[in-house]
Amino acid sequence: MAEVTVTRRMHFNAAHRVHNPALSDAENERLFGKCNNPNWHGHNYMLDVSVAGPIEERTGYVMDLGALKAIVQREVIDHVDHRNMNLEVGFMRDIIPTAENIVVACWRVLEPRVAPARLARLVLWETPNNYVEYDGR
Amino acid sequence: MAEVTVTRRMHFNAAHRVHNPALSDAENERLFGKCNNPNWHGHNYMLDVSVAGPIEERTGYVMDLGALKAIVQREVIDHVDHRNMNLEVGFMRDIIPTAENIVVACWRVLEPRVAPARLARLVLWETPNNYVEYDGR
Amino acid sequence: MAEVTVTRRMHFNAAHRVHNPALSDAENERLFGKCNNPNWHGHNYMLDVSVAGPIEERTGYVMDLGALKAIVQREVIDHVDHRNMNLEVGFMRDIIPTAENIVVACWRVLEPRVAPARLARLVLWETPNNYVEYDGR
Amino acid sequence: MAEVTVTRRMHFNAAHRVHNPALSDAENERLFGKCNNPNWHGHNYMLDVSVAGPIEERTGYVMDLGALKAIVQREVIDHVDHRNMNLEVGFMRDIIPTAENIVVACWRVLEPRVAPARLARLVLWETPNNYVEYDGR
Amino acid sequence: MAEVTVTRRMHFNAAHRVHNPALSDAENERLFGKCNNPNWHGHNYMLDVSVAGPIEERTGYVMDLGALKAIVQREVIDHVDHRNMNLEVGFMRDIIPTAENIVVACWRVLEPRVAPARLARLVLWETPNNYVEYDGR
Amino acid sequence: MAEVTVTRRMHFNAAHRVHNPALSDAENERLFGKCNNPNWHGHNYMLDVSVAGPIEERTGYVMDLGALKAIVQREVIDHVDHRNMNLEVGFMRDIIPTAENIVVACWRVLEPRVAPARLARLVLWETPNNYVEYDGR
Repeated sequence: MAEVTVTRRMHFNAAHRVHNPALSDAENERLFGKCNNPNWHGHNYMLDVSVAGPIEERTGYVMDLGALKAIVQREVIDHVDHRNMNLEVGFMRDIIPTAENIVVACWRVLEPRVAPARLARLVLWETPNNYVEYDGR
Repeated sequence: MAEVTVTRRMHFNAAHRVHNPALSDAENERLFGKCNNPNWHGHNYMLDVSVAGPIEERTGYVMDLGALKAIVQREVIDHVDHRNMNLEVGFMRDIIPTAENIVVACWRVLEPRVAPARLARLVLWETPNNYVEYDGR
Repeated sequence: MAEVTVTRRMHFNAAHRVHNPALSDAENERLFGKCNNPNWHGHNYMLDVSVAGPIEERTGYVMDLGALKAIVQREVIDHVDHRNMNLEVGFMRDIIPTAENIVVACWRVLEPRVAPARLARLVLWETPNNYVEYDGR
Repeated sequence: MAEVTVTRRMHFNAAHRVHNPALSDAENERLFGKCNNPNWHGHNYMLDVSVAGPIEERTGYVMDLGALKAIVQREVIDHVDHRNMNLEVGFMRDIIPTAENIVVACWRVLEPRVAPARLARLVLWETPNNYVEYDGR
Repeated sequence: MAEVTVTRRMHFNAAHRVHNPALSDAENERLFGKCNNPNWHGHNYMLDVSVAGPIEERTGYVMDLGALKAIVQREVIDHVDHRNMNLEVGFMRDIIPTAENIVVACWRVLEPRVAPARLARLVLWETPNNYVEYDGR
Repeated sequence: MAEVTVTRRMHFNAAHRVHNPALSDAENERLFGKCNNPNWHGHNYMLDVSVAGPIEERTGYVMDLGALKAIVQREVIDHVDHRNMNLEVGFMRDIIPTAENIVVACWRVLEPRVAPARLARLVLWETPNNYVEYDGR
């Protein structure tokens, strides 16, 4: 039976600072450069949430994208949009807010909530020239 | 021997209505909401057609993209562009025209026609914020 | 005093048919070709709404873009999104729904409602390769 | 003699908070909502810098775009990229960092520095769905 | 009577070299740097052709965009696509092929051919980060 | 342990000609059409370089994207930007410069240089409507 992957693209704006509190300021500065600015900087993030599964015969859908959007809005976007990723996001507590760590944290939040569809891939764009992706492995 | 995937992006505009004729109007309305509008709505669809294979030494091509474009134009675009997906498309007869069902139907049309290249993936964008993909499995 | 133009981009999907009911079917077919398909086709429209004015000292805004978005949503998008532009849109009654006519009709709807800001320009994209613009003159 | 407008697109990432220090916290919250978050948020800004003038016969250029890029980089981007627009940018001191105010401040910085070309227009995108423009009037 | 501007976006790929044959090689190298490479380089150009006029009551069009596309294809694109802008394009003979000079040359070709519509603006993108525009003045 | 893929998007402009010197001119013309133009044509290429690996606990990075950018700039972009792909690029010597062959050649250049990260995928866009991808298999 055909398995199709469907994706909903979501957007949020946030401030962050790439900083490891276990390291000295000098080491942070050396490792992260301008991304370590103590006064923060920020991005327009774009998150592509993909779920996979068979097509339901009754609806022609793998999953209602309106329902998927509502889940991602409630579980992720409402927590990060117009927020500070280092200070204000419960699921990012004690995690350096690099794009890599954000995408894995989003996976942990979303993976149990999209059933019976299967979370297949997350792609997070941090700028128009760099993005990260994670498929749970 | 290196296997490369090459993609040609195609565009079409169409009207559709997400509707299951086996269900009541009330059930259709409940399941599909505004997408069930009996007066139709429509989209600018974007279809990425990917074929994979070894690079031919003589041409440096996996497949001539002009030839691929001509196949997709003749077998898919000419049938759906400026058309009603529910009423006028032979390969969509009796299929609810969700993006998921359209992409699988396009696969069935294109898969036998791109040989000796191998159809590797179809991605269908329905709006700038949602797309579906299928790889034949 | 500086006058700045601020723009909010909005999206809607709709079905339409380019058809002049005052002309014969043959004449419509000749003039509009595939855009005259009696079974409709459709587009993902993108509408850029621009207002101009001085910057308010208290807010740093020409106009609160959240308020502008709410006006455009209520006055335009809610009437056209997932709709048939020929059959279902009050402000398009008896108007051939070309992009040109749609953009002028949107102007007439929005111009009186954005005061005290001044509606400066509307740009309507019908496909990724064509768009129209109107500035009220 | 033909006058042509040439544009160089530049990018920067920054944190900001829409906040008027002359108003109470409650009034700021009422006016600016989530954009007033005291912990900041941020954007990937895109700035289109346009200069106009006749085409130099010797070069075929209105202005060497490499030179224009260097001016914008030195005078604007180096001051705002990976910075906090409220706290760290000299030319934004005591200015509420809305897109409107940022674009006018950039104009004041750039206008005297692009001579003998004439600064013709600045467009600043704050998100993929909103932008502001200013032409010095 | 309302005047609307309608735009058709066109694409072409070409090779060029920014070079003034009246100057020495050293002077060319100093003025144009890597753009002066004698072995050429190239671009995917994007040309937005805008015409303005009143909306025809019979059609709802300022001008049939299919007709506009055909004119631009025949008069410009067929001459420049997959061509060398310095060597092979009649309307660029003895003109340094900067974006500024190309856009003015396209104006001269197109302006007499779009009547009774009025050519209102040409925008030529040379890369995703730079473009030029010309309105005939 | 989570493996994440991180991507850096890079840009270059180049001239090329699709031509197999082992074949006759007539055969080249038949196989490659306008892409065989002896006077060259060119493109704005976009190259997405993806590396995969576990997230380093100390940095939250799979690999510092600034370091990845510097490697791709030095090993690829500096060799191809504003160049002729047939005549001037060491790693393309005796290779027909189709997108397929370019992407495989870039892989051979980059794969040994990104260790200890693992080169996971290269995507090369030749125009806005076609791209190729390679993952080393």
